[in-house]
Amino acid sequence: MTRYEQLAQEIKTQIESGVWRAGDKLPSVRATCKTSGFSISTVMQSYQLLESQGWVTARPQSGYYVSSRKISLSKPEPILPSTRESVNQSDNVNINDLLFDVIQQTRDNDIVPLSSAFPDPELFPFQVLTRNLASSGRKMLPQSTVTNLPPGNDALRRCIAQRYNLEGIHVVPDDIVVTSGAMEALNLSLQVLTKPGDLVAVESPTFYGALQAIERLQLKVVEIPSCPKFGINLELFEEALSTLPIKACWFMTSFQNPIGHSLPPEKKRQLIGMLAMHDVPLIEDDVYSELYFDQTKPLPAKHFDSEHRVLHCGSFSKCLAPGYRVGWVANRQYAKDLQRAQLMSTLSASIPTQMGIAEYLQSGGYDTHLRKLRRTLQQRQNAFLKGLKDWLPSEIKVTEPKGGYFIWLELPARVKAQEVYLKALQQKIGIAPGTLFSSDQHFCHHIRLNCSFDWDETTRDAIKTLSSILSDMLRENR
Amino acid sequence: MTRYEQLAQEIKTQIESGVWRAGDKLPSVRATCKTSGFSISTVMQSYQLLESQGWVTARPQSGYYVSSRKISLSKPEPILPSTRESVNQSDNVNINDLLFDVIQQTRDNDIVPLSSAFPDPELFPFQVLTRNLASSGRKMLPQSTVTNLPPGNDALRRCIAQRYNLEGIHVVPDDIVVTSGAMEALNLSLQVLTKPGDLVAVESPTFYGALQAIERLQLKVVEIPSCPKFGINLELFEEALSTLPIKACWFMTSFQNPIGHSLPPEKKRQLIGMLAMHDVPLIEDDVYSELYFDQTKPLPAKHFDSEHRVLHCGSFSKCLAPGYRVGWVANRQYAKDLQRAQLMSTLSASIPTQMGIAEYLQSGGYDTHLRKLRRTLQQRQNAFLKGLKDWLPSEIKVTEPKGGYFIWLELPARVKAQEVYLKALQQKIGIAPGTLFSSDQHFCHHIRLNCSFDWDETTRDAIKTLSSILSDMLRENR
Repeated sequence: MTRYEQLAQEIKTQIESGVWRAGDKLPSVRATCKTSGFSISTVMQSYQLLESQGWVTARPQSGYYVSSRKISLSKPEPILPSTRESVNQSDNVNINDLLFDVIQQTRDNDIVPLSSAFPDPELFPFQVLTRNLASSGRKMLPQSTVTNLPPGNDALRRCIAQRYNLEGIHVVPDDIVVTSGAMEALNLSLQVLTKPGDLVAVESPTFYGALQAIERLQLKVVEIPSCPKFGINLELFEEALSTLPIKACWFMTSFQNPIGHSLPPEKKRQLIGMLAMHDVPLIEDDVYSELYFDQTKPLPAKHFDSEHRVLHCGSFSKCLAPGYRVGWVANRQYAKDLQRAQLMSTLSASIPTQMGIAEYLQSGGYDTHLRKLRRTLQQRQNAFLKGLKDWLPSEIKVTEPKGGYFIWLELPARVKAQEVYLKALQQKIGIAPGTLFSSDQHFCHHIRLNCSFDWDETTRDAIKTLSSILSDMLRENR
Repeated sequence: MTRYEQLAQEIKTQIESGVWRAGDKLPSVRATCKTSGFSISTVMQSYQLLESQGWVTARPQSGYYVSSRKISLSKPEPILPSTRESVNQSDNVNINDLLFDVIQQTRDNDIVPLSSAFPDPELFPFQVLTRNLASSGRKMLPQSTVTNLPPGNDALRRCIAQRYNLEGIHVVPDDIVVTSGAMEALNLSLQVLTKPGDLVAVESPTFYGALQAIERLQLKVVEIPSCPKFGINLELFEEALSTLPIKACWFMTSFQNPIGHSLPPEKKRQLIGMLAMHDVPLIEDDVYSELYFDQTKPLPAKHFDSEHRVLHCGSFSKCLAPGYRVGWVANRQYAKDLQRAQLMSTLSASIPTQMGIAEYLQSGGYDTHLRKLRRTLQQRQNAFLKGLKDWLPSEIKVTEPKGGYFIWLELPARVKAQEVYLKALQQKIGIAPGTLFSSDQHFCHHIRLNCSFDWDETTRDAIKTLSSILSDMLRENR
């Protein structure tokens, strides 16, 4: 953080803790210079930053006043969707054919893809990436098809390691294994940690990819309740760790798919402590953390992992280059095992795309792109939330995540998401029914919506239509 | 085949069957026109083709004479490496750490990579491919990151299907699932056909990737003897099919790795008949068939498969674009299952590389590249074989495959390949010891060499050094 960002952060903390209230005039720039010892320009920049973020408002000839909308106390707490109350253990994970249909719909241009797991492809710098792909391709030595075998392209692994270190996480390039997207990263991690019949802990609801991987590797699952307000229930998890032979866990600790919750740093630290106590490794699925709307990126649990117990899985697919299939695992202890598993299953990630992304990262536009991406995603989420608030029956609970691009809806229990799904599909609207996100039918009255799309007529109409489908169903089932 | 190729083929058959002997004058062009009904230009082209292939020699003012060197009877049959005599069944497939070391050495520039499974990277048109990658990237619509999800890029699947149809194999684009190289194609195929504990038949020796995949999926293996002269022993395979609960087989039917044998068409037909009788599917690993040295590409067993029992796995990694990680499975019956398995494990193959290869194929230079590649590989194999013949002790048996880029050596049983491997490594030469190619130690006195490299000083020195290591060991162990 620069000095002016630090100062802004301090003032923000003061506002949040009630030192300054809505309508209060902040100390003048000159006064703050005196108390803080910073230069006029630093203080000015801080105030402007706070203004741009909506914390304060400038009144000409007068000064900076604390604005009201940012103060959390003044905002009524939304009633968030609930979750299951106890853990669920299942020997047979079997997500039905529904998922395949839902994914295949994504390919159909006629369907509004609110069901999609992928961010709006229009959000990404494909032309720049193509230039990097071409430029790195021209410089490519034939030998690189061999030297880039697992663990992967050296330059790319250095770039990734650098980004960890900038966040204060000590990762060296040799800890990184580049994979065909996070999906392979997660699958390989699960594979090296388990053998058929082993028990794996996931959140509930959870990303269906975790359930699929567990099914594929013939593992058993224990589902730990996770809710949009508090995230994973660590008390129940602790109990599960103490009573069940859990071999590994697969958690999404930031902007969890589908509920959007991020565990606060203190809980991440606590989680790592529990895992250390029981010596259980964590597969940390962290593919959305670059898509934060607050001031700073949420730290992963990996940050607190001094014993290399976290296999941290990341990817460029959600934040830079969908379709390139470049992801990674960062872990020192299992790096060799991961490489072996990869050599056996896909041999290596695509080499031109690894090189292209490495060149893109080295050329330095990534952070600018990310800032723009976050802003757009936040604006789009706002538009979606406003639309949902205006048109949805008030009985339906809606999350308001602080990052990512999913909104999770809880319908009254009498309305089945599966029916909503079919009715929406008739109107050419795709939604992801909640049953995809657990091994049982617990979330059968939940829906996940992708809110990364431009709030244009098509999207607006889709949300309107979906809202009236839901209103009708609620009325009919009264 | 064109008419002139047909005619050339007929004459070749006549020469082989002894109708025309070395030194005989072929009928004049005019006479052949009369008997065949073909035009002068067709007959001329036939004769020129035969001449270019060394079957006949033109004598000015006289005519075409059958040359002697092509007549197989005049060439002493090489004594080829042997194979196991009976099937081997193993519950626990476990290739040791050796393989990982061997693969990792490939990345080391200081080691002459005769151990490598990859063809010399200098053989491929990377600059042209990069242009196609850039050009298709510029035309790429963002939406393509979604529309190219499994089964993969439409244009690419059409190109692949077209090539099958040109060979007389009826495959439609919907039968094709694009994968991250053949390795993923083979692994996904094995995965959809089996569950842990099932029995899978492979050749012995076999590509270690098959053994690894079997290990990974906790399957059992039965290894059917395969020798460089006759290929897989179909009698023993038939017996195994009748007595063992074989769930699937994984065979490399053309230019088998490591022995280089191609099953003749009649045996492929017979194989398919056996599989039909027992209703057992075949995973046909067919990644080397484009690298043939004879006149025509060997037909895959898939050619005889009218009941969609063959999952035909191909790739561009050995013949066009190593490192791009683009391969495929062609099968109608399992196409959907394969897509599901892929969505669960890697999501999809890299999309820019799929599009780049599609554009390359559409632009039409592929066959020219392949012709040049085959010629080069044949020349290099010749140089290697000559070097080995000149320098190796005569006790060592050597294959002379008609395609691909592997040479398989059988040492006298008293010499262990593992020791050769270690001694060669001290001299910075990598070789692949035979133990990698079966689940037991049967091929512990065999070696696989990669002969795709330029016959330059480094290669020559490596083969010379390897030969003297072997000579010394043979002498010491007498």
